[in-house]
Amino acid sequence: MPDSDTRPGAGRPANSVGLVTPHVAKFDTPLPLACGRELPEFELIFETYGTLNAERTNAVLICHALSGHHHAAGYHHPDDTKPGWWDAHIGPGKPIDTDRFFVVSLNNLGGCHGSTGPVSHNPATGRQWGPDFPLVTVSDWVASQARLADHLGIERFAALVGGSLGGMQVLQWTITHPERVANAVIIAATPRLSAQNIAFNEVARQAIRSDPEFHGGWYAEHDTVPKRGLKLARMVGHITYLSEDAMGSKFGRDLRADDLNFGFDVEFQVESYLRYQGDTFSTAFDANTYLLMTKALDYFDPSAACDGDLACALAPAQCPFLIVSFTTDWRFPPSRSRELVDALIRAGKPVSYANIESPHGHDAFLLPEPRYEAVFDAFMTRAAGDLGLAAPRTETQA
Amino acid sequence: MPDSDTRPGAGRPANSVGLVTPHVAKFDTPLPLACGRELPEFELIFETYGTLNAERTNAVLICHALSGHHHAAGYHHPDDTKPGWWDAHIGPGKPIDTDRFFVVSLNNLGGCHGSTGPVSHNPATGRQWGPDFPLVTVSDWVASQARLADHLGIERFAALVGGSLGGMQVLQWTITHPERVANAVIIAATPRLSAQNIAFNEVARQAIRSDPEFHGGWYAEHDTVPKRGLKLARMVGHITYLSEDAMGSKFGRDLRADDLNFGFDVEFQVESYLRYQGDTFSTAFDANTYLLMTKALDYFDPSAACDGDLACALAPAQCPFLIVSFTTDWRFPPSRSRELVDALIRAGKPVSYANIESPHGHDAFLLPEPRYEAVFDAFMTRAAGDLGLAAPRTETQA
Repeated sequence: MPDSDTRPGAGRPANSVGLVTPHVAKFDTPLPLACGRELPEFELIFETYGTLNAERTNAVLICHALSGHHHAAGYHHPDDTKPGWWDAHIGPGKPIDTDRFFVVSLNNLGGCHGSTGPVSHNPATGRQWGPDFPLVTVSDWVASQARLADHLGIERFAALVGGSLGGMQVLQWTITHPERVANAVIIAATPRLSAQNIAFNEVARQAIRSDPEFHGGWYAEHDTVPKRGLKLARMVGHITYLSEDAMGSKFGRDLRADDLNFGFDVEFQVESYLRYQGDTFSTAFDANTYLLMTKALDYFDPSAACDGDLACALAPAQCPFLIVSFTTDWRFPPSRSRELVDALIRAGKPVSYANIESPHGHDAFLLPEPRYEAVFDAFMTRAAGDLGLAAPRTETQA
Repeated sequence: MPDSDTRPGAGRPANSVGLVTPHVAKFDTPLPLACGRELPEFELIFETYGTLNAERTNAVLICHALSGHHHAAGYHHPDDTKPGWWDAHIGPGKPIDTDRFFVVSLNNLGGCHGSTGPVSHNPATGRQWGPDFPLVTVSDWVASQARLADHLGIERFAALVGGSLGGMQVLQWTITHPERVANAVIIAATPRLSAQNIAFNEVARQAIRSDPEFHGGWYAEHDTVPKRGLKLARMVGHITYLSEDAMGSKFGRDLRADDLNFGFDVEFQVESYLRYQGDTFSTAFDANTYLLMTKALDYFDPSAACDGDLACALAPAQCPFLIVSFTTDWRFPPSRSRELVDALIRAGKPVSYANIESPHGHDAFLLPEPRYEAVFDAFMTRAAGDLGLAAPRTETQA
């Protein structure tokens, strides 16, 4: 079920998956959740790129991060100027090569881009779920993603791939459903949040929840949104996504005007940038979704099941791992990836690790960088070879 | 004019300055400010510890940081359980030894602890200054502190000492009034804020200014305070004061209860700590003061007068410098202190530099630490010797 239009002349770069259309899968069997509640029914919105082979062995699942969604590659409309959020890495000839892999990318449960979440209709009450939507965990996401795999007839993924919170989902897959994961790629992630990571999330939550427009999460019923809180949450988050050096070289101490204004209007370029990021986000993202995503981050800690011993928690995993970190990432720094690598080694699992030199901080996982591409591509090519997948088409074959 | 009670039996540690009483100095000559406005009159609240010698050569000025004030050492009331904010370093036998130095510690202009600031009466309007209080800069503070020195009959300070924003004031003194500074101690500071530093300040400002209770700064006239905004500002600030490691070893991922609550009540210990810090601060500190203090931080950049060349800006300085940084300080990391050290060396100034191993992040400047004490004490002892100050009294002399 390819839904990408890669016809020549579609006006897109040759290595784009072209125009894509999301699908919605509906699930009627109740989903039990870690919190003890269950979702009676739910929908997941997803996109696919490339073609599922007859043996159904070439599927790659993309797991998204905090504010991500299903639209990872290509374009929704001919007039779109920006492609999906991971277009740098998904497409013909890219590390996740749609000439050989069938890529599935979904919006997670609890999201606000089309999957069942706080903005969805709650069948039990007849109104929006809002703050009544249960707090879902990384394990719950894995369970819902497994339902989507069943729906698509995918018994085992050629690879699971994710950055940041997406990487945590990949890690949980290898523990919960090891037999369904042939390869795992975990980028710019951590096996569990530090106290500082939780602290930043808590600031974001307090910003949203203390906004008078939040109304205990029932803002939609008051025809409003907690814009101020979401803006602040995004501003704080954004600081942690960029490296100090990247911020410095991008903005430095540059002023927007020639002189200091001795007031509180926007003055430094970095202020202008942050306010813009915050404003844009505050009207586009659902506050209840943001809250539950941060909680899923805080709660994630597979080692807890083994009294803090991560190697023990990883014992069920059966696949080769690629772990990637970035030198200037201070949200989930290289040391956190190395914790995971060390635990995988102690658990006797095959693991490749690359710490990529990049000035871009945590955001580096979204951006093209030659060594990152090379490592990622080599791992995926080896994975394809192991699975006996066809070599990608070349220009002369096309 | 000693105002400390060091009588034996006062019930305080022997190395405490004991009970202290603040003084207020009133200045009637208008103070021109960097913003182009002027303050027609102003008051500064200050404390002193130790005794000014007959030659008036043993005075040390303490410059405070973002949320600091004049009460740096000793106790205000016999029932006080906590001493002033820098009591670890000021007192008999401590690095700033009140047996040989006469210590002056003030609340800066624009503050909210007794010096003229936004909560003061504006003689021109008959109401509180509020947001009409001018944005003061580090240079303005130095000018007002020089007035205080004149008032006290201090021609030249034996030393100026400050941590963080306080260190910036010391640096500005050495440029503006080099003849009045015999020694300069600049701790955990930076010659100018980075884009990331400004970004964090901007989040704090947006939090305060977007609080509906802020009322454009006229919250007092609305009988309210922007508590939510101040709380968020303090929470963000607090994260930057602690090192990731200190937060990790202090709180880790410890929960307040046995289990996750799958809701938004306080759950992790680090959340509880941050909320408490924020709540306490939000009722004790003035929002307009907080805003102007962050602006003074952002604006500070002596190198701007020399097209970015810090060594050129430091040319007027005439005194020996002690620069101290802390290994885990990520607000103003050691690299920022080294920038200053390098510029001082290029400018041909005598400079001692110590990068102190500490787990406490930026807050380390407030805490006792043997190597920090030793370096600080050695510099001050040498300074006293150069100035021909008497050796401190010893127990047997007392």
